[in-house]
Amino acid sequence: MAEEVKLLDFWPSMFGMRVRIALAQKGVAYEYIEEDLRNKSPLLLQMNPIHKKIPVLIHNGKPICESSIIVQYIDEVWNDKAPLLPSHPYDRAQARFWVDFIDKKIWATKGEEHEAGKKEMIEILKQLEQVLGEKDYFGGESMGIIDIALIGFYSWFYTYETIGKFSIEAECPKIISWGKRCLQNESVAKSLPDSRKIYDFVVQVQKAMGII
Amino acid sequence: MAEEVKLLDFWPSMFGMRVRIALAQKGVAYEYIEEDLRNKSPLLLQMNPIHKKIPVLIHNGKPICESSIIVQYIDEVWNDKAPLLPSHPYDRAQARFWVDFIDKKIWATKGEEHEAGKKEMIEILKQLEQVLGEKDYFGGESMGIIDIALIGFYSWFYTYETIGKFSIEAECPKIISWGKRCLQNESVAKSLPDSRKIYDFVVQVQKAMGII
Repeated sequence: MAEEVKLLDFWPSMFGMRVRIALAQKGVAYEYIEEDLRNKSPLLLQMNPIHKKIPVLIHNGKPICESSIIVQYIDEVWNDKAPLLPSHPYDRAQARFWVDFIDKKIWATKGEEHEAGKKEMIEILKQLEQVLGEKDYFGGESMGIIDIALIGFYSWFYTYETIGKFSIEAECPKIISWGKRCLQNESVAKSLPDSRKIYDFVVQVQKAMGII
Repeated sequence: MAEEVKLLDFWPSMFGMRVRIALAQKGVAYEYIEEDLRNKSPLLLQMNPIHKKIPVLIHNGKPICESSIIVQYIDEVWNDKAPLLPSHPYDRAQARFWVDFIDKKIWATKGEEHEAGKKEMIEILKQLEQVLGEKDYFGGESMGIIDIALIGFYSWFYTYETIGKFSIEAECPKIISWGKRCLQNESVAKSLPDSRKIYDFVVQVQKAMGII
């Protein structure tokens, strides 16, 4: 059966980026469908009626939702190359733990314009630097599910730093080196938007909302 | 190698109950260690330094944290009987989606004493009734990871109903039938505390906090 793979996504979404990278790592061809989140398509509402959120992967007509669940699904379906989760159950549990940590903490640090928000973000990144240790990637010698979970966040660093007027590199140089290393992978380079484009988008949204 | 399995837990925890049931389903013998959450043990702080929360499974000295991650770990390690996740990747993704839904929604419905909180809880349970459909269990003919994720919540229903003065059964009879069916499994019956004991505990905590 010919595989039909579609991705409902929104370009600045760090969660959408995860799915794009996972599909690229596996070499899966797919149709990218950009969503207008202010005017969600009937297809999105039909495919994710519970959360009504992107990203949604549609594989042979069936939807899979929630980015970290989608990445695990991709790893299980296209299991002939580029494993994204470790093979040992304990290592898999650890990988899932840190992905969950990133999921929970990313949204807790919305306040990058405030001192407490900046401090919390730096603390989270320092914790992740300890997990990375001396490895090239969280996945070891190649990118794994933790790398994929975090790298979209990295593409927002320029925006956080510019708006919040602080330097992540000064505090967390290892994470910055890691991000640059990830970007040397074609699957990442072609899946992440330009950091400045994200910044311009955020400024535009803030203006439209009357924040600045 | 002899397996050494310990569980750091707190008896009314619906998340701890998940791990107890999963271990019981697999027939894994383990040492149960009750934690005093007002005075956490050095072992808990050492084994879960990030979240400092129960449950923690300690398998041959190594900790696994976060209940739904622990249940998946148990399923992967003791994979010779009682599969907790479906075998097909799509069904696995769906199971993970609903466990995630339960995780996110359970904590959103803290306000069971208020009308909005009750209404939201009923809505969530009605959505889950649709997922259950005409099946005996969410897992089909036997209990799976969604059943395990939800049944601890069911043991709190009596408390919610008594404090909130409403009837879940009147609105969601299928979920109540499902809960009773689950309790006929020995693995559930021996892992869940008496609903009235949970109620007494909550009343005692509310009195200590000066709420009632």
